[in-house]
Amino acid sequence: MALNKNAVTGMRDILPQEMILRDYVIDLIKNTYKSFGYTPIETPVMESLGNLLSKQGGDNEKLIFKVLKRGEKLKIDSAKTEDDLADAGLRYDLTVPLVRYYSAHSGELMRPFKALQIGPVFRADRPQRGRFRQFYQCDIDILGEGGTAAETDLLLATSTLLGKLGFSGFILHLNDRRLLKAIAAWCGIPEECCDEAFIIWDKMDKIALDGVLREMRENGFSEENVQAYGKLFEELSASQDPLSLLEERLADQNVAEIIQGLRSIMISVRKAATVEFNLKFDPTLVRGMGYYTGPIFELELADFGSAAGGGGRYDAMVAKFTGQQVPACGISIGFERLITILLEQGFKVPGSAEKKAYLLEKNLPEEQAADVRRLAAEERAQGKQVLVAQMMKNKKFQKDQLETEGYTDITEVYKR
Amino acid sequence: MALNKNAVTGMRDILPQEMILRDYVIDLIKNTYKSFGYTPIETPVMESLGNLLSKQGGDNEKLIFKVLKRGEKLKIDSAKTEDDLADAGLRYDLTVPLVRYYSAHSGELMRPFKALQIGPVFRADRPQRGRFRQFYQCDIDILGEGGTAAETDLLLATSTLLGKLGFSGFILHLNDRRLLKAIAAWCGIPEECCDEAFIIWDKMDKIALDGVLREMRENGFSEENVQAYGKLFEELSASQDPLSLLEERLADQNVAEIIQGLRSIMISVRKAATVEFNLKFDPTLVRGMGYYTGPIFELELADFGSAAGGGGRYDAMVAKFTGQQVPACGISIGFERLITILLEQGFKVPGSAEKKAYLLEKNLPEEQAADVRRLAAEERAQGKQVLVAQMMKNKKFQKDQLETEGYTDITEVYKR
Repeated sequence: MALNKNAVTGMRDILPQEMILRDYVIDLIKNTYKSFGYTPIETPVMESLGNLLSKQGGDNEKLIFKVLKRGEKLKIDSAKTEDDLADAGLRYDLTVPLVRYYSAHSGELMRPFKALQIGPVFRADRPQRGRFRQFYQCDIDILGEGGTAAETDLLLATSTLLGKLGFSGFILHLNDRRLLKAIAAWCGIPEECCDEAFIIWDKMDKIALDGVLREMRENGFSEENVQAYGKLFEELSASQDPLSLLEERLADQNVAEIIQGLRSIMISVRKAATVEFNLKFDPTLVRGMGYYTGPIFELELADFGSAAGGGGRYDAMVAKFTGQQVPACGISIGFERLITILLEQGFKVPGSAEKKAYLLEKNLPEEQAADVRRLAAEERAQGKQVLVAQMMKNKKFQKDQLETEGYTDITEVYKR
Repeated sequence: MALNKNAVTGMRDILPQEMILRDYVIDLIKNTYKSFGYTPIETPVMESLGNLLSKQGGDNEKLIFKVLKRGEKLKIDSAKTEDDLADAGLRYDLTVPLVRYYSAHSGELMRPFKALQIGPVFRADRPQRGRFRQFYQCDIDILGEGGTAAETDLLLATSTLLGKLGFSGFILHLNDRRLLKAIAAWCGIPEECCDEAFIIWDKMDKIALDGVLREMRENGFSEENVQAYGKLFEELSASQDPLSLLEERLADQNVAEIIQGLRSIMISVRKAATVEFNLKFDPTLVRGMGYYTGPIFELELADFGSAAGGGGRYDAMVAKFTGQQVPACGISIGFERLITILLEQGFKVPGSAEKKAYLLEKNLPEEQAADVRRLAAEERAQGKQVLVAQMMKNKKFQKDQLETEGYTDITEVYKR
């Protein structure tokens, strides 16, 4: 029976043209983030299921590819649940592996530790256009730095990177998880219902205020809760300075320091940014992951609807591994989205090497072919890309495809 | 319960110091191979089990990490075998995925297609020192080119790469799978016992001729077979020109063209090589994989015992996917071995950027901090790596670790 030439369901092969762009963007990401002092690291794509299923990953935990146990450990006959069959899985993001990595190696790492990761992650999502089950994420994180200088650095580095890729005028939405909790408390929402409220508020840009309030009622929030949130949201929307308005309204909720932190991030980033963009306090920003503990942010690219990146502070996660609290925050850019947009825009990878090809006549004497190869080696040493290939019967086809690939200098070599 | 801070069994985290070397070597590999006209591609780490278990992978097929089926497809209660539980697995090499890729996309690819792949592969080997269950492979392959020019190109490109990494005097062993078959036939070994004989011959460098002959006898080869092989091997070892000797001995076996091919590869590579190394016909070279159909090669680095790479021609594999025969050959370098050797040699990554750090006093006014960040941005644009960090209480510790990391210019910034 013939083998299957398709990639596994929901995953895909990268063709050369896209690969050249991806390599270019990955280089640019690495060089830009390194220039800010971020250090590249790598962890295995596989993690223990205990870590992956530790309630850090929200809905992503339902999408884990689990890896079958091997050898004596695998007892199919007596297996009742997936736990009996698998104890490891493919990572669904780079944050859980990073925190495990930091917990294991912190003695050998710089303090604070500025990490850079680029690599594939895996989610068994329903296959759909533009969404794949293996995709690259690109994260930077700072561990061991509690002040807002960390957030400032992450946002400056990322906006610098986006500027280098030709993006400007994008929006970075900023909020704070603690502020969301204070808003909830002010609305009279019990603490244990906060997450449920956040999930609804997060839909503001899709279903608008009417929809949000309706969903709150449908989910059993009291009329008092709903009215309070509705009124506050309308006031915030109408305000020129929603942060000051919140400061006033939530005066009883101890939010002064939180709001001061957000102001500091906004002032610092705006003053030092090297590219024009909109850094905007957004009281409706929630971010899905339950692990956030402080400022949160999300990237919106003008010509692209949904979020193209995001992150925030997650000060409590290291303690789940080591028992010790370590401040941490990070930002992830949507690598695949960037690539999709750049491809759609017809982005040209700059500064490729000059491409030259030698086509050797069939049965060219070895001595003469070697002369060509030595010459090619010299030209490569000068920075050129030099292909030495056998001349095909259909020479026109061969030359056409070389020209399409950007070979500008094609030399046919015949027997002397 | 605390989460597990260790990488999964047999896999490992890459620490920053090694990561810098790996990134450097990967860049060098990509740039060198690209300069020969190889095109980077990428496939998913997951492949269908049907492809992975198609007898292309030899013993590696026993080492596959299988991925649990999901949702309705997974019926634990009625599962009898692993096939009922898994239909995909992690790739154990890059060759099977490449051939699948070529089969699926050949219409969109250059002809011949020169592919470059660098990525992780997975084998559930018994954990041991220096061997891991996730490791990088780095392959180049040429599909659609039947002549020995393909082998010549692979070997020249790879020796150029090794030269750039500072290696010279290495040995590239060369043989031909068809020649091994002719030797077996000449010794009177039946065709169906060839593979068994090859596995024993492959051990020549470990157990010497005595051991090889003993194992042949133990495995039931006839005394005539054993004597013939022993005599031929001794003659070959004593000969100055084993290839001509074989040509003479195997005159009845139609080996003239095969031997001419090997000669052509040796002449062409030696004449055009840009680094000094030993390209050597080695009649005992076997290579494990059963899919080879022509010339095979193996890389031996002087200060490292076992093979640090290898490859060969596998003209029959594309047909297993498409039914159409497509000539193909490739070489894989042992990326992890190279890294291990370079680390042991204390290899210094050349030309790193100048590293500069600004340490900001606690509570520095935002305006002043922004001035520093703007200055840092200008210096980054000049090619420097510039870290802006909060000054730690233990400033001496902070400066010491920055110096260890190569920061040569450390500026403390205090309130104006």
